Amino acid sequence: MKDPLHSLLSSQAAKIDSSEIRKVFALEAGLKDPINLSIGRPHFPTPPEICESLIQAVHDGKTSYTETQGILPLRERISQKYAEQNGFSVSPEQILISSGTSSLIQLAFMTLIEHGDKILLTDPSFLIYQSMASFFQAKIEWIPENFKREDIEKVDTKNLKMILISHPSNPTGHIYSKEQLLLLAEIAQKNQSILVSDEIYELYDYENCFISPATLYPHTLTLTGFSKSYSMTGLRLAAAAGPSCIIEKMTVLQQYTIVCAPSAVQYAGITALDLNMEKIQQAYKRKRDYCLKVLRGKLNFTHPAGAFYIFAKITGKDKDFVERAVREKNLLLVPGYIFSSSDCHIRISYAAEDGILEKGMKALLELV
Amino acid sequence: MKDPLHSLLSSQAAKIDSSEIRKVFALEAGLKDPINLSIGRPHFPTPPEICESLIQAVHDGKTSYTETQGILPLRERISQKYAEQNGFSVSPEQILISSGTSSLIQLAFMTLIEHGDKILLTDPSFLIYQSMASFFQAKIEWIPENFKREDIEKVDTKNLKMILISHPSNPTGHIYSKEQLLLLAEIAQKNQSILVSDEIYELYDYENCFISPATLYPHTLTLTGFSKSYSMTGLRLAAAAGPSCIIEKMTVLQQYTIVCAPSAVQYAGITALDLNMEKIQQAYKRKRDYCLKVLRGKLNFTHPAGAFYIFAKITGKDKDFVERAVREKNLLLVPGYIFSSSDCHIRISYAAEDGILEKGMKALLELV
Repeated sequence: MKDPLHSLLSSQAAKIDSSEIRKVFALEAGLKDPINLSIGRPHFPTPPEICESLIQAVHDGKTSYTETQGILPLRERISQKYAEQNGFSVSPEQILISSGTSSLIQLAFMTLIEHGDKILLTDPSFLIYQSMASFFQAKIEWIPENFKREDIEKVDTKNLKMILISHPSNPTGHIYSKEQLLLLAEIAQKNQSILVSDEIYELYDYENCFISPATLYPHTLTLTGFSKSYSMTGLRLAAAAGPSCIIEKMTVLQQYTIVCAPSAVQYAGITALDLNMEKIQQAYKRKRDYCLKVLRGKLNFTHPAGAFYIFAKITGKDKDFVERAVREKNLLLVPGYIFSSSDCHIRISYAAEDGILEKGMKALLELV
Repeated sequence: MKDPLHSLLSSQAAKIDSSEIRKVFALEAGLKDPINLSIGRPHFPTPPEICESLIQAVHDGKTSYTETQGILPLRERISQKYAEQNGFSVSPEQILISSGTSSLIQLAFMTLIEHGDKILLTDPSFLIYQSMASFFQAKIEWIPENFKREDIEKVDTKNLKMILISHPSNPTGHIYSKEQLLLLAEIAQKNQSILVSDEIYELYDYENCFISPATLYPHTLTLTGFSKSYSMTGLRLAAAAGPSCIIEKMTVLQQYTIVCAPSAVQYAGITALDLNMEKIQQAYKRKRDYCLKVLRGKLNFTHPAGAFYIFAKITGKDKDFVERAVREKNLLLVPGYIFSSSDCHIRISYAAEDGILEKGMKALLELV
């Protein structure tokens, strides 16, 4: 029986559900020592330099509100990072610090999207994008992830307000090529749309092919997370950089919602940006290469040039496969339908200890 | 000239501005050693036990995502707090942990409010309430803060979805009496509305008269912040407790927006709830009593039974008064129009060192 209070929910909230994802997590909850290849967070601990910097900030009393936009030294350091590592120039005034990339996606939707607007997404997409589009009553236009000019030309661009990509991609590991990014820039330019590039997996670029679209199109909103690069998923820190008018309005909205990113963590963020994470990148490249070696010829998947996922096609329904993996092998995977209109893929995360990864690959091969 | 990208803003975002509040902050930025009675945060440092607990959590590697709803030990401890201190019973499942009370207000609006809904606010109100009502396209019905039955009877209750109070009140320090809360419960009950009680200033209850409306009306959403009670404004921690159906949907929406409250801070929250903050409460009572002694007979104001503000009527326009205070006395105050339809009040914060408070009171008396 439905709770009578259910009638009080806003129509947007009533539409949004997580019951499917919860079913996946519920499967997990009952297991003892599962082989967990479902997790979306790095397997290594937060680097000690970051922890020490956070602790120092707490000792220094950095536990009060910061300015809404984020502390200036962090915004300056991020501005420097964009110039040095990403090849584009933004002033610290064009940068907003918030409590995680998802908060920034939400602020971008609040700032830009209303009923009747259109959003261009690639299939598959990170699941939050669809949920936010639904909440803000936008229509989604879909293109395949490996889109070419002809796919772009088919898009109904009326009221196209935003193009939103996960780059490198969760769930496929795809890194958009310069040609693809130029196509997105072209359609964005033609329709005066904002290109939002969620670069939370930027570190995990194994073939040195990652390009920030902000270098190609000025009306790009770049989202840079600390969670995946520095294993800070619980500390809640991310930055957005983009056109002043958009960043200013996102900052106003942050003042009324998130208020500010955790203060002490902002100081730790400065330390994080000075760390060399090459060893982690190489370790993850080795993990990826190992998975590719095992799975090649056994399963089909998009080439995972980045992030730490493989999105593999399976025979039968993803739900059934994932349930069978749990039942027969104690193996946790994520079904593809959460990200895609297709229901015959699984997302494999190789953000795991080598031993677990080996067990997982063995179990997976026995299942397919 | 308007930025051409301005046309991309959503109509809700375009409406929301903070330019007026920014003017106040801009006044402040130029001053050297101002007498600052404008601040909305406690003047004392975060208690060392809380800092140590936060540091321990970082050492223990509590830097990864927590469950969306917040860690169970904190929800259990808050459930216990409500039973022992507030006199109402909620299970840990009916509690959501988020990154600050403002985030919870936003989630409550997302969950409950859509175009055409009505919200009941008291005048004056905490400024975020009006901004969120505007963003979510709700109509506001206003009642005076010292409302009586006849004020309630005048309210047009069609589509009344939410009643939202700051209790104790920012900006007046008013604590709603049991009679007032029963009137709100009555109108809420009649209209099947949710009563949202923002209790972030709960500790600052100088006359032991604070009652949580959740003890009077079951469909109450109680918001409990850590920021003001424990001087944790920058650490971003708060809890909401209420009907399961509402908390569940807020949790789903948190999964797509805020994701989780800062992980290490959640552990520090458990420590916070075990602290005895009576000395702080008494110190703030002394500050309030000192201000009352100085101002009584000189200015008119609502009796401030709680929080750490006095909302005083002045002659002339609040904006002019606040500007004159800066110019002539280096004194920072907040103009009342930010909170109210009236423009002849100032908000005085006594969350300040005694020496600053004395200087501020002296300067204020010279101005009136």
